[in-house]
Amino acid sequence: MPTDKSKSKKRITSYDVAREAGVSQSAVSRAFRPGLSISRKTRDKVNKAAAKLGYKPNAIARMLITQRSGMVAVIISSIASFVYPELLTRLNEQLSAKGLRILLFTLDGAEELDEVLDRIWAFQVDGVIALAAHFEHASIAQFEEHDIPVVLYNRQVPDHPVNTVCCDHEQGIGQLVQSLVKAGHKTYLVMSGPEYSDVANERRIIALRQLKNLGFDDVPVIYGNYSYESGKECFSRWMSNNPAPDAVICSNDMMAIGCIDEARKVFGLQVPEQLSVVGFDGVYASDWGAYELTTVRQPVNQMAKAAVDILVDRIENPGTPPEKRVLAGEFRKGNSARV
Amino acid sequence: MPTDKSKSKKRITSYDVAREAGVSQSAVSRAFRPGLSISRKTRDKVNKAAAKLGYKPNAIARMLITQRSGMVAVIISSIASFVYPELLTRLNEQLSAKGLRILLFTLDGAEELDEVLDRIWAFQVDGVIALAAHFEHASIAQFEEHDIPVVLYNRQVPDHPVNTVCCDHEQGIGQLVQSLVKAGHKTYLVMSGPEYSDVANERRIIALRQLKNLGFDDVPVIYGNYSYESGKECFSRWMSNNPAPDAVICSNDMMAIGCIDEARKVFGLQVPEQLSVVGFDGVYASDWGAYELTTVRQPVNQMAKAAVDILVDRIENPGTPPEKRVLAGEFRKGNSARV
Repeated sequence: MPTDKSKSKKRITSYDVAREAGVSQSAVSRAFRPGLSISRKTRDKVNKAAAKLGYKPNAIARMLITQRSGMVAVIISSIASFVYPELLTRLNEQLSAKGLRILLFTLDGAEELDEVLDRIWAFQVDGVIALAAHFEHASIAQFEEHDIPVVLYNRQVPDHPVNTVCCDHEQGIGQLVQSLVKAGHKTYLVMSGPEYSDVANERRIIALRQLKNLGFDDVPVIYGNYSYESGKECFSRWMSNNPAPDAVICSNDMMAIGCIDEARKVFGLQVPEQLSVVGFDGVYASDWGAYELTTVRQPVNQMAKAAVDILVDRIENPGTPPEKRVLAGEFRKGNSARV
Repeated sequence: MPTDKSKSKKRITSYDVAREAGVSQSAVSRAFRPGLSISRKTRDKVNKAAAKLGYKPNAIARMLITQRSGMVAVIISSIASFVYPELLTRLNEQLSAKGLRILLFTLDGAEELDEVLDRIWAFQVDGVIALAAHFEHASIAQFEEHDIPVVLYNRQVPDHPVNTVCCDHEQGIGQLVQSLVKAGHKTYLVMSGPEYSDVANERRIIALRQLKNLGFDDVPVIYGNYSYESGKECFSRWMSNNPAPDAVICSNDMMAIGCIDEARKVFGLQVPEQLSVVGFDGVYASDWGAYELTTVRQPVNQMAKAAVDILVDRIENPGTPPEKRVLAGEFRKGNSARV
């Protein structure tokens, strides 16, 4: 736990108590767990040692006292994304520092939502962080009815106030589009993520609106599924019936990387000399030497911290009104576009 | 849940019971949770509807009956690795199919082990899967004392029998080394992962032994930390005092990818024409067009399935002796080495 390290005193563990009491760690563990048999003599020894050292048996005891489980459900969708691993790591760091643990749920499709919700209630989690999963108004209302605070990541629910942490897509995509137009690109292709992804839809709509505002109407759109492979496939599909555009605006970095590989290897195009490609996310691989993507990096650290801050505040202060935090991305001028 | 989809009947949820009983989902949820107040009339309606539909309230009820929590602790170390995300996804699929959920723990250093163990006992998990975390004999014994089965991933504990699932490093690295030697490479560099990683040490030792067996003694070793950046840095460090070798044998794909980018961009070397580079793991990015790594792919799917199978068997049949499963990797002849 990062925060514990900075404190001067080491946290007392059951092992310290066991040494002090002259019993096994297992005995200490049993002494603080309800319903398990242990001799009165051992229990007394353990209690005495625990009091002396200031040992606080953690999760279970806290659960019984506070009626909290110490667990936060993190719901991820199964769409392959290079953003999730980093995000999950950051969320885990932030939640651990607050003494909370991640209980992982995967949502594969809308038809499973009821099942996932049932499981979440059953585990009595203290809160929920939903990454890119599609939640309707009704699901959010269910959480509210159960007094379980929810924070959505990069996702809003129309006409329903909800805690949410978003990357500023408008500003980030605006910067990408404006720099492409300013640099003189005349023909565009928007490579979108899947239509069932709210984030993909938002990014596509913003890109098209920004282009229109700058005089580029009716820019064509091609749809992929956010993966590297679909970036390759989309570019090939486009090229089978059309000339290469000046610039491809991809809804995420993975598709941009696939697009670049396909353009270079299959169509012999030089990137960025003959084709500009921009992405979005700023994933780990985006600045690798072979790609050096021009992209917008989501501020994953700050977004994870904001999500956990909002959630913990709502766990501790039920009834606080929902809040939306929008964090600016960082424009990265790489070497994949002539901007 | 993948397996549920294939079944003909949809799982009955609390929402179905609520509709049948004419009460809210929240009422159904409360009816099956101990210690919560609910009117006798509502409880009767819910019980009747539940019986009619064959609804089985899940985790909490099961926990009370079976004394199991339905949770498995997955311990990951914080070393950046592109293998974990895929592995975590596969473990989650396999565990979900068995009705088990992942409770995530991160182990940052040996000094924290006692704390992490305390947390694991407190949550009363049913079992533990440890990915690349460094466990001593003593920690394993603690789990055994608590009757919590453990499965280690790619890791063995000397002189202590323990459940483990490993990729066959001997066979995989053997294949890489033999094909390089057979193709006529004369000078080698082994780019190793960090010395605190058991897997890295195993891979380095095997590579050096295999080279020695084929007549290449005293092959130099350079140490990185498994990351892309350290692959770049290691290659630069080597080149600052030495000529380029014929082949670099990297302990993982990430370092191999960094090594390739550095060789091409900074030293103007053509890969594989002037420099052969091989990796290990077969991560998502290893077959991207810019790299097309020659590597050995860990059978992540099968390894995750094996780990979950062993764990569930030990949860259900305590006392079953420990078991080791070694799964062969898949040699992938990419385009990063002259083999």
